Amino acid sequence: MATSTSISKTLIPFSKTQEASLRLPHRKFPRPNTRTHMPIKLAARDNSSASLVNYKPKLEEQLKRLPEAWRQIQGESDWAGLLEPMDPLLRAELIRYGEMAQACYDAFDFDPFSKYCGSCRFTPRAFFPSLHMSHIGYHVTRYLYATANINLPNFFNHSRWSKMWSKHANWAGYVAVSDDATSRRLGRRAITIAWRGTVTRLEWVADLKDFLKPISSNGVPCPDETVKVESGFLDLYTDREENCGYCKYSAREQVLTEVKRLLEMYSNEEVSITITGHSLGSALAILSAYDIVETGVNVMGDSRGVLVSVVSFSGPRVGNMRFRERLEVGLGVKVLRVVNLHDVVPKAPGVVFNEQLPAALMKVAEGLPWSYSHVGVELALDHKKSPFLNPNADAVCAHNLEALLHLLDGYHGKGERFVLASGRDPALVNKGCDFLKDHYMIPPNWRQDENKGMIRSNDGRWMQPERPKLDDHPEDMHHHLRQLGLASSDI
Amino acid sequence: MATSTSISKTLIPFSKTQEASLRLPHRKFPRPNTRTHMPIKLAARDNSSASLVNYKPKLEEQLKRLPEAWRQIQGESDWAGLLEPMDPLLRAELIRYGEMAQACYDAFDFDPFSKYCGSCRFTPRAFFPSLHMSHIGYHVTRYLYATANINLPNFFNHSRWSKMWSKHANWAGYVAVSDDATSRRLGRRAITIAWRGTVTRLEWVADLKDFLKPISSNGVPCPDETVKVESGFLDLYTDREENCGYCKYSAREQVLTEVKRLLEMYSNEEVSITITGHSLGSALAILSAYDIVETGVNVMGDSRGVLVSVVSFSGPRVGNMRFRERLEVGLGVKVLRVVNLHDVVPKAPGVVFNEQLPAALMKVAEGLPWSYSHVGVELALDHKKSPFLNPNADAVCAHNLEALLHLLDGYHGKGERFVLASGRDPALVNKGCDFLKDHYMIPPNWRQDENKGMIRSNDGRWMQPERPKLDDHPEDMHHHLRQLGLASSDI
Repeated sequence: MATSTSISKTLIPFSKTQEASLRLPHRKFPRPNTRTHMPIKLAARDNSSASLVNYKPKLEEQLKRLPEAWRQIQGESDWAGLLEPMDPLLRAELIRYGEMAQACYDAFDFDPFSKYCGSCRFTPRAFFPSLHMSHIGYHVTRYLYATANINLPNFFNHSRWSKMWSKHANWAGYVAVSDDATSRRLGRRAITIAWRGTVTRLEWVADLKDFLKPISSNGVPCPDETVKVESGFLDLYTDREENCGYCKYSAREQVLTEVKRLLEMYSNEEVSITITGHSLGSALAILSAYDIVETGVNVMGDSRGVLVSVVSFSGPRVGNMRFRERLEVGLGVKVLRVVNLHDVVPKAPGVVFNEQLPAALMKVAEGLPWSYSHVGVELALDHKKSPFLNPNADAVCAHNLEALLHLLDGYHGKGERFVLASGRDPALVNKGCDFLKDHYMIPPNWRQDENKGMIRSNDGRWMQPERPKLDDHPEDMHHHLRQLGLASSDI
Repeated sequence: MATSTSISKTLIPFSKTQEASLRLPHRKFPRPNTRTHMPIKLAARDNSSASLVNYKPKLEEQLKRLPEAWRQIQGESDWAGLLEPMDPLLRAELIRYGEMAQACYDAFDFDPFSKYCGSCRFTPRAFFPSLHMSHIGYHVTRYLYATANINLPNFFNHSRWSKMWSKHANWAGYVAVSDDATSRRLGRRAITIAWRGTVTRLEWVADLKDFLKPISSNGVPCPDETVKVESGFLDLYTDREENCGYCKYSAREQVLTEVKRLLEMYSNEEVSITITGHSLGSALAILSAYDIVETGVNVMGDSRGVLVSVVSFSGPRVGNMRFRERLEVGLGVKVLRVVNLHDVVPKAPGVVFNEQLPAALMKVAEGLPWSYSHVGVELALDHKKSPFLNPNADAVCAHNLEALLHLLDGYHGKGERFVLASGRDPALVNKGCDFLKDHYMIPPNWRQDENKGMIRSNDGRWMQPERPKLDDHPEDMHHHLRQLGLASSDI
């Protein structure tokens, strides 16, 4: 149909020359389909999440570069030359990791009226299939839990009911590994760790204790006591609750033992470790990346050090300048931070003292417990560049991960025209916010279960179905902890 | 299991002697299952809506009485002797009509972000099957529409989108008729008219113009100018909008022609007309019942007058004392009004001058335009008698239809113990409110569509599906209007 043809043109990235010749003086960005008020129709594709496989044929050609290019894409050279203009393969990979981070929200049970509030709605085996993400070619090897005893508002969700799956634990993410076919396509066995963040409200940013403490004070190794991180993030990463099957081990212990186990399993292969997370999940991603390398868990039996990269979305600052130096220079962890310019979260904590101060002043401030620094390389996007989005939407929209992935899809470099590269479905933006312009007729906050998950039992009664019990932790956990020197008699 | 056995005992109505012997001094009502915090488990049944067929074997025995008893159940003798104690067959029939009124809410598209907001979500043919109510044994013969130009807050729902199914119309209910098998079971061909009401907020009660005007002033026939009804209800019933396919005929014209058509179709059978509605739908039920008899539409070709009954739920007052007299004495319309004692809606309009004043004072006040009177027989229930309900719930809960049907199911007469007669699923109460006690673990307001009705199209994009266009009005409408003397050149 005529309208879809005109829109689908916007999917093909123009060269600068093409763009200049096509750009009209008064029309900087391609206009969405404002006249017909029809549902968004873009280029045909098999699967709305499968940005990787549907940007045909250009993206498929790009993806063939992965077995050679993956170290560059993972940031081995700090993404030099890949961001301006935006490398199409890097963009596709960033969106893929973003979708793995988004899966943490899509799978999380937020409903305070659910008995399983705060848990993952699916078993690890059913995780990707239930989210219609089987095409991603990974399987989940472990779920990660954090203790909800930490005072971090809006990260933890509690059931209104007194009987619930766990009083102490909240599901905090997962570890997944690429299957054989995908590993061949990616050029290595890819381990991805995705940490859940907070999605609905932003109060937790203001409520952060905003207090830096030595990373070593919670048992994370560090040769330098001046390396400090925000205490709330660190507590979330290292605390455990003895009386709970799910969080009797800290998130730290869970992730370190799982990485160790996987690296032993794939000891004869080329392996990568990518840690992703949105919002508070980004803080956990950066902390765990630091920890994995500082602890030496990423070193294989034959002394090869596995490249550890972080793909961070809408993340806050985590530590001080010394933390940044240790992470980047000392440990060689690669961090790419994708942010929306208008999002308040990446501006916190450390609104006053941060890496943007002149170096001399920052050096003076370095001793202060509220002198923060971002890490890695920033990719800053601007939601005002997308013709699909309402520029006057609520501030919380600027922090939305689906919106950020939409911006990534349209980003070709600074000053470049916003053109959706893969045609990733803009309707996904409104899954959990109210950000799309009205005439697209996509309901805001549309992700919801039929009848809040209530089903009719065989005897005709409406009820909340029981879910399969989620495993807590594997038998060999203690063995791996001992190997890591983390076993203690109280575990 | 033990717990379900103990609860299922509460399903069997006790005789007074049994009750007295079983009642403990400090335990007036059967306690719900407070200890185990399990989902409600009551007696086994096939279908939660099928209260009629599942109260076995007692109810089935009762239902066999219908072919002889239906005229009594329909109120031919003003329900004398059937309410105290509550007749089990009458209770079952009231619940059945209540479920047909509730169907108007369950089928209505309330979502302002739907293109079809304000319409019925299903075609007439798919109506009962889509609501899992096939067992009711009726089929919908016609949908009723009202023009949304009337100033009745919260009755009309408008789409946020500019392109919608109709700018002027809102779906207002349906006419249905019993199929052959059901008619044999019921002892007559049963025509049921169900009018939709307002469900979410109660502001419309306060916003009522509270102004009585002669029913004849809007073209409804009446031999007496002092017979008056609330002007907003009357306008809703008689207004039309020429520029709209759905409401170019008034609700009045739609319902009169359909009843006429059906009575011609079933002219050789015994027929009943039952009009039901909740809240504002009750006002429309009473007005249309008046109109059908006053107009003589209920008179068959062989001069038999068909019994017209109203089963009203949570209804407001509609007219003055003269209206009541004309309706009850003059026309012989039978009205049973089921109300919750704590609901504010049946107290309006006419909070000051109403049928509860001493007769002499009422006679003086009769000329005033705000002197209202309820009609028919009242069955007053009390939600504080149900051990399932939270007595401190929001006031809007006392107006909820599902809650009222739950109260009906437990009602056996004044001062009698609350015992669920059919075991109708208490979880239904929370379908659209927050009324059940917490420990039943039924989420409040749980009725919702998966992903707000969004589906993935064949090309993988999320979108609102198109719905089949709803028919507006039948071809022979004009023919029937002419027969009724209602045809005018401007229609």
